[in-house]
Amino acid sequence: MLERSDPIVIVTVGATEQHGPHLPLNTDADIGTQVATRIAQASPVPALTLPTIWAGFSPHHMAFCGTITLKQETLFAVVYDVIESLVAHGVSRILLLNSHGGNIALLKTVVDEVGIRLGVSPVYATYWHLISDAVTALRRSEIGGMSHAGELETALKMVFAPGDVRTEAIEDVMIQPGEFHGVDMFAANRIGIYRPFDSWSASGQIGAPSLATPETGERLLEAIVDQFVRLIRSQWGKR
Amino acid sequence: MLERSDPIVIVTVGATEQHGPHLPLNTDADIGTQVATRIAQASPVPALTLPTIWAGFSPHHMAFCGTITLKQETLFAVVYDVIESLVAHGVSRILLLNSHGGNIALLKTVVDEVGIRLGVSPVYATYWHLISDAVTALRRSEIGGMSHAGELETALKMVFAPGDVRTEAIEDVMIQPGEFHGVDMFAANRIGIYRPFDSWSASGQIGAPSLATPETGERLLEAIVDQFVRLIRSQWGKR
Amino acid sequence: MLERSDPIVIVTVGATEQHGPHLPLNTDADIGTQVATRIAQASPVPALTLPTIWAGFSPHHMAFCGTITLKQETLFAVVYDVIESLVAHGVSRILLLNSHGGNIALLKTVVDEVGIRLGVSPVYATYWHLISDAVTALRRSEIGGMSHAGELETALKMVFAPGDVRTEAIEDVMIQPGEFHGVDMFAANRIGIYRPFDSWSASGQIGAPSLATPETGERLLEAIVDQFVRLIRSQWGKR
Amino acid sequence: MLERSDPIVIVTVGATEQHGPHLPLNTDADIGTQVATRIAQASPVPALTLPTIWAGFSPHHMAFCGTITLKQETLFAVVYDVIESLVAHGVSRILLLNSHGGNIALLKTVVDEVGIRLGVSPVYATYWHLISDAVTALRRSEIGGMSHAGELETALKMVFAPGDVRTEAIEDVMIQPGEFHGVDMFAANRIGIYRPFDSWSASGQIGAPSLATPETGERLLEAIVDQFVRLIRSQWGKR
Amino acid sequence: MLERSDPIVIVTVGATEQHGPHLPLNTDADIGTQVATRIAQASPVPALTLPTIWAGFSPHHMAFCGTITLKQETLFAVVYDVIESLVAHGVSRILLLNSHGGNIALLKTVVDEVGIRLGVSPVYATYWHLISDAVTALRRSEIGGMSHAGELETALKMVFAPGDVRTEAIEDVMIQPGEFHGVDMFAANRIGIYRPFDSWSASGQIGAPSLATPETGERLLEAIVDQFVRLIRSQWGKR
Amino acid sequence: MLERSDPIVIVTVGATEQHGPHLPLNTDADIGTQVATRIAQASPVPALTLPTIWAGFSPHHMAFCGTITLKQETLFAVVYDVIESLVAHGVSRILLLNSHGGNIALLKTVVDEVGIRLGVSPVYATYWHLISDAVTALRRSEIGGMSHAGELETALKMVFAPGDVRTEAIEDVMIQPGEFHGVDMFAANRIGIYRPFDSWSASGQIGAPSLATPETGERLLEAIVDQFVRLIRSQWGKR
Repeated sequence: MLERSDPIVIVTVGATEQHGPHLPLNTDADIGTQVATRIAQASPVPALTLPTIWAGFSPHHMAFCGTITLKQETLFAVVYDVIESLVAHGVSRILLLNSHGGNIALLKTVVDEVGIRLGVSPVYATYWHLISDAVTALRRSEIGGMSHAGELETALKMVFAPGDVRTEAIEDVMIQPGEFHGVDMFAANRIGIYRPFDSWSASGQIGAPSLATPETGERLLEAIVDQFVRLIRSQWGKR
Repeated sequence: MLERSDPIVIVTVGATEQHGPHLPLNTDADIGTQVATRIAQASPVPALTLPTIWAGFSPHHMAFCGTITLKQETLFAVVYDVIESLVAHGVSRILLLNSHGGNIALLKTVVDEVGIRLGVSPVYATYWHLISDAVTALRRSEIGGMSHAGELETALKMVFAPGDVRTEAIEDVMIQPGEFHGVDMFAANRIGIYRPFDSWSASGQIGAPSLATPETGERLLEAIVDQFVRLIRSQWGKR
Repeated sequence: MLERSDPIVIVTVGATEQHGPHLPLNTDADIGTQVATRIAQASPVPALTLPTIWAGFSPHHMAFCGTITLKQETLFAVVYDVIESLVAHGVSRILLLNSHGGNIALLKTVVDEVGIRLGVSPVYATYWHLISDAVTALRRSEIGGMSHAGELETALKMVFAPGDVRTEAIEDVMIQPGEFHGVDMFAANRIGIYRPFDSWSASGQIGAPSLATPETGERLLEAIVDQFVRLIRSQWGKR
Repeated sequence: MLERSDPIVIVTVGATEQHGPHLPLNTDADIGTQVATRIAQASPVPALTLPTIWAGFSPHHMAFCGTITLKQETLFAVVYDVIESLVAHGVSRILLLNSHGGNIALLKTVVDEVGIRLGVSPVYATYWHLISDAVTALRRSEIGGMSHAGELETALKMVFAPGDVRTEAIEDVMIQPGEFHGVDMFAANRIGIYRPFDSWSASGQIGAPSLATPETGERLLEAIVDQFVRLIRSQWGKR
Repeated sequence: MLERSDPIVIVTVGATEQHGPHLPLNTDADIGTQVATRIAQASPVPALTLPTIWAGFSPHHMAFCGTITLKQETLFAVVYDVIESLVAHGVSRILLLNSHGGNIALLKTVVDEVGIRLGVSPVYATYWHLISDAVTALRRSEIGGMSHAGELETALKMVFAPGDVRTEAIEDVMIQPGEFHGVDMFAANRIGIYRPFDSWSASGQIGAPSLATPETGERLLEAIVDQFVRLIRSQWGKR
Repeated sequence: MLERSDPIVIVTVGATEQHGPHLPLNTDADIGTQVATRIAQASPVPALTLPTIWAGFSPHHMAFCGTITLKQETLFAVVYDVIESLVAHGVSRILLLNSHGGNIALLKTVVDEVGIRLGVSPVYATYWHLISDAVTALRRSEIGGMSHAGELETALKMVFAPGDVRTEAIEDVMIQPGEFHGVDMFAANRIGIYRPFDSWSASGQIGAPSLATPETGERLLEAIVDQFVRLIRSQWGKR
């Protein structure tokens, strides 16, 4: 694993949860896996991937059959132990890649604990946090269109696994953003609340998947990979 | 406590940690307390405050004497138990007010757990997350000037407790923001890392406290209270 | 914080719980805070106080609105972490001051754990445990009169915060002591039981607050401070 | 087990720890077992005993070989689970009998938790807490003589298991009581500290075992049983 | 305890649970204790016994009054702490002896954790796992006859405590083994399931206790002791 | 997910750990995944698979780079939470499939806890436990040849992923079985110990991989699938 000197190891955390009528349960896990693979391929520093941690924190989706959720303390422990194993083998360049909104806060608490106890800081990024500029340029939907199984995720799935997208089942669900809390992945959420998804949307989906295209997906993916390459360079230099 | 019908209860979480040479250990706790009091006074719905949870998650400041830190699981438990007590008394309108950066992710995990287990969602806000627009207009410092014990906190302390500000000890420490991670409270941090404060700054302070003025402090405070009043209205209507 | 060499640090733990119709929720926390301040002032060795841990273990009061209780493991963790932070800064003279009956056993378990894990033993005292002789001389009530919001606490509140005492609401509730278990703070309890307060007293109060006077309060306070000064001398010598 | 209606069940907690050169490791556990058996025999209400929980909280004795200690959370869990099993079978009259000083505070926290979670309150007593009057009359040693493996425990062992007492190895170790903390089981300890036993006494023993006699042991045992019978009557009436 | 050099210490774990109409609650604990004592006596290396951990993991027996069960995490903690205490005193030769089926998997997890954290591996054996050959030769019952309070346990109890066996209450309960899961202690169970005992047998007993004889008991006991002596020799050599 | 009525859901747990010089880190996870897929295909009752839990309990392999281990409590929590999610969706037919020796005991404790808390019992099987008869007939190696990365695992990998087998790196490591503990997967281990793999074998491999052939692999796989089909029939009937 560490044959090549001092590689980056990418630890990917996704989710297995409902993604509306048109996307499969594995959407977040699959996107995470695919993105991680492409980052590793494009990385200016040798980079390895681990298998994706395919279950995340998804209690707000449990009203929808098929969702698998870990408790927060369980997800914490899994990610912590995986990173601790890496650190035990001398890995110090760890990219913690997240592809699920429900994991965002929890994974930051893992990063902090790893920093305190193990003396190593993973670089932690939720993939869409790096592409807000590109998204503004590329998105066809209004704010609200890229929420859950919306334009972004559908477009990426069209690239990674077109067969997974049941286009005939697509139905847009747009929720007007509030002043302090929007449901778009790129909305400026100024507050935190907890709200089960079945109270947002009967189908479990929120956003405008009908506007997704494979072309947008490709360009979004390019933006993601490009940004992660920049991030790797900024953190760990060049090859 | 619940004499008046269905009041908002404000649960405030701060920190007790070093704030450079010119601000006291109680800076975050005091700002939280003062802000909470003013929000309660201005609230369009009857609002009560609890005493401030004065210790937060501050391991990154432990190199500086006087810092008190709770472990993440401890802070989680304290905030959870306090909220659980409120819920047991029938309180359903809870404003979880945070005044310390180190608490941000952890408190979101508490909100989620409260939502899952108790069926109530606190409205959670870190006070400066509500005033980015006002800050852009009011700040005298560049990005980097409002980080830790910088222009914002110093200005607020000048309003709340001028005697606490040792102006003669002020020395600015400006850190250039990176592409993905800035140290300003209003920087767009796209990634998460863990980094002890003594590796950022020998004095423990980061920012431009020299640019703080009581006047700015007053106007920032107005903006904070104004925004929280709007938030309360948007969440819980009028009196 | 440690400017003066090797100071005593006083860690105060109170409670936020009902104290009958005539005393406020903050009674225990306030008494703890006030007593700690006066001990620090009178201490023959330099002494610092931390903010009071204002929530304690109060499940037996949860039938009364406004009570905030921490779980035992939460209170343990908070007090432990605070002390651990002090020890990390080199503090070895720690006075753990308790002002709430419900905390007594739990805090002893913290002291033991601190001793085992950190190699430092706090000196732990519940304030009224030091003044049994003075109380015998000063009390106007019979055994049973100093229980919960009774003569002792009411008298101290008359000193610390007279405006907090709603004298018009005072109504004495005297419970006859059993052979093995009395409800007075100075009764010799030979056994331990758990009993919610609403099964003792409909108002939540037990004792004879009507006999409390500010004069007794002053003399009790003198006795408390005097005893703690003696305790400090016996444990840590003179200035 | 519950053949007879509504029996008392006695849950006994002891310790396995050094008791100086003249008493065995099982001293506390054995005394607990013997006392429990005699209480059950004399009880005015049908009473059953469980096997003794023979390990307690003894980290302060770990410098002496043979001591077995449970962590506080472990001892808590064991006693809690045993009581929970009883409650599951409908037992509501539980006498929690303790024979080890190190367990005192911890067991009270168990009683509280049982009360909160299971709605049943055990009656909890450390055996010597019930006989202070008798001891004053019967003891031949000064204060300090009944501490650890001192006059009381040695006298009881002379009754229960004379072969266990190595009288030739007896050597008294008397420690002068402080103003706030004595080491005698009947001293009025006004404060709590943690102190390993090897810092008190090189042999691990404290007290005046040389003054122990089987006759005193018999009379102390009578007093213990008599008091527990009174306690049972006061709590649960007669047969 | 460690007077003789480098002794084996036998840590015995049993259970307190129903054993049908003819055997007492203490069956597993008693068998464990008796077996441990005889192993210690016959051991080629000096061996000491601890008191038996008399409660085990028995939730599947809780429908039957008198059963005491520890939670899995509690039993783990007790056994771990006892072993940790031994290791702290320098003991490295630990025989973990189990006499209860419900403990089998859990105790293996303790052994693993001890190995990881303490660097010492106990040798762990459930007593009947060592005598399958002897049992094949000695048993009078078919497969199914030695399950719970069946031929084996009844025969051993006839040796250790004949007065404990209520022969008049014996009633055989034979359950046909499945292809993958038999209920005999010597069946080849290829799968794991959880099933409460009251769903197997109304009396709580499974097996053929009527075929038990003291003579078989004696010969089984000889086989047990013989095998443990061989085990000790194979692991720790001769005296 | 539950479109078809009352499906079996297969929860597969593997490991990511060194498998000697000739097999990859993913060996256990991959075998688990492949076996689960084939079982689902052949199942007489509709069966679904979840993604494999690819990290297991592997501290004994941590001396070898690349091994990822979860702590026992972490693995417990992950598997428990996944099953709890299934149960929340109404799944009652759960096949817990294990492909790693280090997980065996721990997963049984999960099954027990699921049974107690959720009232559902998974059917738990480690795949090779079902094929001992077939293995006796098919194996070319002696006892000792099928241990870790030995004949069995190598043969299965030759079927599932021939490209993963570095045949040129194969070197047999045969360890003679002891009387009570053998290292072969099919040895009758009568005792439990903890022993890191680097103390068994410098290469991390134990067994006779040189005797593995794809043909044996195919026949072993047939035996596995056949046995699981029989197991499913015996537990849950036919389609």
